[in-house]
Amino acid sequence: MVLTQSHSLQLVLDLVGVFVFALSGGLVGVRKRLDVLGVIVLAGMSGLGGGVLRDLLIGQTPPVGVSDWRLMGVCLLAGICAFVLHPEVSRIARLVRILDAAGLALFCVAGSIKALSYGMGATTSIFVGVLTAVGGGLMRDVIVGQVPEVLRRELYAVPALLGSSLVVVAHESHHYSVPVLWCCVVIVFVLRIVAVILDLNAPQPLRTGDRP
Amino acid sequence: MVLTQSHSLQLVLDLVGVFVFALSGGLVGVRKRLDVLGVIVLAGMSGLGGGVLRDLLIGQTPPVGVSDWRLMGVCLLAGICAFVLHPEVSRIARLVRILDAAGLALFCVAGSIKALSYGMGATTSIFVGVLTAVGGGLMRDVIVGQVPEVLRRELYAVPALLGSSLVVVAHESHHYSVPVLWCCVVIVFVLRIVAVILDLNAPQPLRTGDRP
Amino acid sequence: MVLTQSHSLQLVLDLVGVFVFALSGGLVGVRKRLDVLGVIVLAGMSGLGGGVLRDLLIGQTPPVGVSDWRLMGVCLLAGICAFVLHPEVSRIARLVRILDAAGLALFCVAGSIKALSYGMGATTSIFVGVLTAVGGGLMRDVIVGQVPEVLRRELYAVPALLGSSLVVVAHESHHYSVPVLWCCVVIVFVLRIVAVILDLNAPQPLRTGDRP
Repeated sequence: MVLTQSHSLQLVLDLVGVFVFALSGGLVGVRKRLDVLGVIVLAGMSGLGGGVLRDLLIGQTPPVGVSDWRLMGVCLLAGICAFVLHPEVSRIARLVRILDAAGLALFCVAGSIKALSYGMGATTSIFVGVLTAVGGGLMRDVIVGQVPEVLRRELYAVPALLGSSLVVVAHESHHYSVPVLWCCVVIVFVLRIVAVILDLNAPQPLRTGDRP
Repeated sequence: MVLTQSHSLQLVLDLVGVFVFALSGGLVGVRKRLDVLGVIVLAGMSGLGGGVLRDLLIGQTPPVGVSDWRLMGVCLLAGICAFVLHPEVSRIARLVRILDAAGLALFCVAGSIKALSYGMGATTSIFVGVLTAVGGGLMRDVIVGQVPEVLRRELYAVPALLGSSLVVVAHESHHYSVPVLWCCVVIVFVLRIVAVILDLNAPQPLRTGDRP
Repeated sequence: MVLTQSHSLQLVLDLVGVFVFALSGGLVGVRKRLDVLGVIVLAGMSGLGGGVLRDLLIGQTPPVGVSDWRLMGVCLLAGICAFVLHPEVSRIARLVRILDAAGLALFCVAGSIKALSYGMGATTSIFVGVLTAVGGGLMRDVIVGQVPEVLRRELYAVPALLGSSLVVVAHESHHYSVPVLWCCVVIVFVLRIVAVILDLNAPQPLRTGDRP
């Protein structure tokens, strides 16, 4: 792993990313009035889903999300937090969105790095990076039957796409180093935060008579 | 396959499990007023979905669910049964739930056994076992757009989690034998039946103002 | 690839199929009032989803849908077309359905050919062919939360099932040649068009009191 020279730091980052996405899934579960087990299962799918899709696409079986008990433990913890603390967590929605932006930034960069390290080409590595970042939220929304946020929320996939592309460009142009990769993470994070603050939205279709 | 020394008995058990889950999918399809083909397709996804997910995660391609015509034939039969006999089947809802508990018990144990036989570690084998048991129903519910039963039904995933864990514990502690594995199946089945009869539910979140 | 002796013709066919399915996904996105990015993402999932599922099932990683930038470029184009031209595209709904029938025919045949070329057996090759053809539309509908068209639309999966079966029969009986494969494509296309024109539907369940 090039992202960090220290393996234990890398693990902490992974765990933080999984925790944040799992927490977002758990909160959706609480809002849907699931019981505690449903909240935990949904937290797990949200936290691990992106990584599992990534590993299936690059051919790494079993996916790390189903083989590393620490990642699952973090999801369990996040699910319980969401269940027990949900009024408090809702009140700190701002903090959750900041953490979510951090998860997005970490996962798109880490996903592309992993794909490159498995010998994937540029296109695959970009796609896989984006999917790592948005896949967990996508699963969460599909499972509870709402249109995925990545399809309708203010610029969400675009920062991830940029981040994954930068990682691949750095790799192809032999500027693939730890500081560069951290720059990618920071760029994605800042872009996403700006999108949240400014409530930036991509253009919607012109209204016509063809409502569903 | 350690679960049974007789291969033909094993096949019968597999077919029974697939049939039961396919029947549950077919009945959901009938309730959603799908046509006969839709009912059959939904029965197939429900019956085979858990096994296909399991095989993708442990890296066995093609998954047995798409390569063994007998499993597909059973799904076809279950779909037609659900379509033709649905008033009768609805009346025997009690029987269907008992069969569903049997399918849950068989699949979580068989899924973990398969994962172990492919050299997966303990965490993966437990997770894969649970997913084998609940995956088909999860797919069924996601496809027809309802919140999955595994997220909201009285204790459903927990007996499967216990069963898969017992299989792995037996494997790690060298008590991995046919009678022990059958005990796991029976324990899951009984637990699930008790949960159905007592209508046990996991705790729900405290009400607050944050309804969706 | 036996389907065409000319690789470039094959590529054109692939691109046309992906474009048509991506366009259908983009139009659904417009109808759901997604923003332009959501429309493009949904177009991509619809266009590439069937092929990605096929490649996962036959063990080809990374799936071609995430590794060939031309296929992604076509989805991007289709998404933009759907977004910009949607009133025009809606007016030519007839043309879209004809193109969709062409996509169905091309994909079920091409999917089965690919499975056979990877050494899959007859059952797997048939199943994989059908899934290649219907998988993208299935993903599209699941993601936006509507019951998949393949479950409720007039004969849709059946022509694909016939086409994939014919490919496999031709392969097993040593009549596997380019003209025969093109005949399969034409048969599926014609059947599907007839089903659309006649508005053929499979039988629905008899009404009972058990409405959902």
